[in-house]
Amino acid sequence: MDFEAEFGAQLEALKAEGNYRIFADLERDCASFPRVRNHGEGPAEVTVWCSNDYLGMGRHPKVVEAMAETSRACGTGAGGTRNISGNAHHHVMLERELADLHGKEDALLFSSGYVSNWATLSCLGARLPGAVIFSDSLNHSSMIEGIRHSRADKVIWRHNDPEDLDRKLAAVGPDRSKIVAFESVYSMDGDIAPIAEICEVARKHGALTYLDEVHGVGMYGPRGAGVAERDGVMDRVDIIEGTLGKAFGCFGGYVSGSRAMCDFIRSFASGFIFTTALPPAVAAAARVSVQHLKQSETERVRQRRQVARLRAGLEANGIPHLDNPSHIIPVMIGDPVKCRMIADILMTDWGVYVQPINYPTVPKGTERLRFTPGPFHSDADIDHLVSALNSLWSRCALSRQVA
Amino acid sequence: MDFEAEFGAQLEALKAEGNYRIFADLERDCASFPRVRNHGEGPAEVTVWCSNDYLGMGRHPKVVEAMAETSRACGTGAGGTRNISGNAHHHVMLERELADLHGKEDALLFSSGYVSNWATLSCLGARLPGAVIFSDSLNHSSMIEGIRHSRADKVIWRHNDPEDLDRKLAAVGPDRSKIVAFESVYSMDGDIAPIAEICEVARKHGALTYLDEVHGVGMYGPRGAGVAERDGVMDRVDIIEGTLGKAFGCFGGYVSGSRAMCDFIRSFASGFIFTTALPPAVAAAARVSVQHLKQSETERVRQRRQVARLRAGLEANGIPHLDNPSHIIPVMIGDPVKCRMIADILMTDWGVYVQPINYPTVPKGTERLRFTPGPFHSDADIDHLVSALNSLWSRCALSRQVA
Repeated sequence: MDFEAEFGAQLEALKAEGNYRIFADLERDCASFPRVRNHGEGPAEVTVWCSNDYLGMGRHPKVVEAMAETSRACGTGAGGTRNISGNAHHHVMLERELADLHGKEDALLFSSGYVSNWATLSCLGARLPGAVIFSDSLNHSSMIEGIRHSRADKVIWRHNDPEDLDRKLAAVGPDRSKIVAFESVYSMDGDIAPIAEICEVARKHGALTYLDEVHGVGMYGPRGAGVAERDGVMDRVDIIEGTLGKAFGCFGGYVSGSRAMCDFIRSFASGFIFTTALPPAVAAAARVSVQHLKQSETERVRQRRQVARLRAGLEANGIPHLDNPSHIIPVMIGDPVKCRMIADILMTDWGVYVQPINYPTVPKGTERLRFTPGPFHSDADIDHLVSALNSLWSRCALSRQVA
Repeated sequence: MDFEAEFGAQLEALKAEGNYRIFADLERDCASFPRVRNHGEGPAEVTVWCSNDYLGMGRHPKVVEAMAETSRACGTGAGGTRNISGNAHHHVMLERELADLHGKEDALLFSSGYVSNWATLSCLGARLPGAVIFSDSLNHSSMIEGIRHSRADKVIWRHNDPEDLDRKLAAVGPDRSKIVAFESVYSMDGDIAPIAEICEVARKHGALTYLDEVHGVGMYGPRGAGVAERDGVMDRVDIIEGTLGKAFGCFGGYVSGSRAMCDFIRSFASGFIFTTALPPAVAAAARVSVQHLKQSETERVRQRRQVARLRAGLEANGIPHLDNPSHIIPVMIGDPVKCRMIADILMTDWGVYVQPINYPTVPKGTERLRFTPGPFHSDADIDHLVSALNSLWSRCALSRQVA
């Protein structure tokens, strides 16, 4: 087998269909974010329009100081798995903070949101007797891979459709362990699940509910606990999964729920047990960020204002975008090559950095630009972006949306 | 299904067999490590004897400063996946540094060593035509899970036995993609693979070689590139996988190899694509640590001296331990309850923290204490540990080893 040739051939196929990814080479600066230094092609400074650091907490002075101070106090790494010398008091305190955030008995940290989904769902699916996982059709790759890894039976229900879920739960006998896995905010379309209805259906069939709130935590609810908090239904969800790497501005993932559930995953999930714990300094910074967003609405209020302003600008100019109730604004292109070309022109000519979103992140034919305005985007930044898109839409004769 | 009862029952079974894990609650201090603050039961200060921060690089002033300074400059998180706004120049520079370390064309970062094994092996196994993965029988859980996830055929060969590997490779036809996956230093027994022989056998059968060096990087070879560097065979290994979370004292994992291989994994591995990038500050700290250990032998020389001193102390007192050529000293107990009890007494009465290693980390019946002396353990620390073990061996009437 000529492995190099095989790698090359599969990469060539990816390039031919326009789905080969080129990473922007950027350098964030706390003082100027979302303005960042660009080490790649194009202007030396660009404005980031597609960050998941939705509220700019990654540059918040208190969060930054917590990371810098804790690394000076405790060092740069945990030095082991949670079980073997890597369990730091900073992890324990962060888990308590997250349990409190979600009104749950306990929480459990993972290396990332990806790993928390993958490890938890694969552990539940593999160890609960006769498990069947009911998975929303648009669930994230990390959940899909976790379910696949568990080898449990999987039933896919129609996206955000509690009636379809109801029918599918009813079709499986009551002796099986049923787990309903879904998200609150779907990151690529920006639509939001009817959590209350889904939980009601799940309860009717005795199913465990697993809710991925990675795009909701920090952003929704009076204390930033997510969409389930905003909707007043946190107590109806059995397991809430979240991330520290998006609105909280740091790194890592977690699940929160009952003490027994967390202890179960802690004790049996390979992806939790056999991996080095997060750096204590990351845990300390995340805790400060969570605490801050529990008490402060400032960032969320300002962020919503800027989201509304960008939406209004797009509408006034007929730039086609998905209508949704969230903070994510997808501008649909529908072709991978065109999507990459528009993003390249925005970067080079306008200093606007927005990554083209192609397959496998979204289905082929739904390629898009995905904008996430934050509290640090100024009104002038938004006007500049709208002008750029407007000019591009004229220049490339792209179709407009009539209001 | 009563999920709480099910979680509880499985946890009770774990407790009954003595395998329930209790995490020590510790707080590292750069100034005093391996002396750490203990927030749990026992003395307020204990000495860590089981850290994977083998060389104490997590407290190295240059490494700590890189993390603190970079978090102040760039913030606490990357803010996205590598593809969507999360690619920082610090990641790019670290990947170049790692490629140089291993004498390879390129390198690719992951959230952790666990994820690098899991994502790379599952991608190779799933995408290479007719893949068969030949896995050493004592490979780490992250490799086993990656192979399982790939759904490729798996052949297990006898631990560290090139002849058995040869026979098993010969039994599979030449039209299949053969991948040989193994480790350099096996972390629980501390034995070391015959890398040159394994690579020779693999080459004879046209197989790709995948070597996990997580317990080797930083520790072996004149530039700390691992056992393959020490043995002068880095160029014979196709893919070297390593971690930044052990001897380099930070967090994260990587693979290094040909440009096409790295690009292939970058482009197709779900566990790489769909996850937030490492914090730039972590990447910056890791790069400084790698650079330092490329040039400095001081830490490795001192560490080897302390390992030899502890071994000599154990031998002089007949404390049974596995003989091996590495830096890991396993003291065998063979019973999970006794192992936990001895560890508890060491912690409470002697201020010695060593985590009992039980199932599933090691097979049942091979429970052990695993000591990893480092350059910051003083001679007096070692003498104290030997006295503690000696006293415990007399008190508990444990069997001694005659030299």
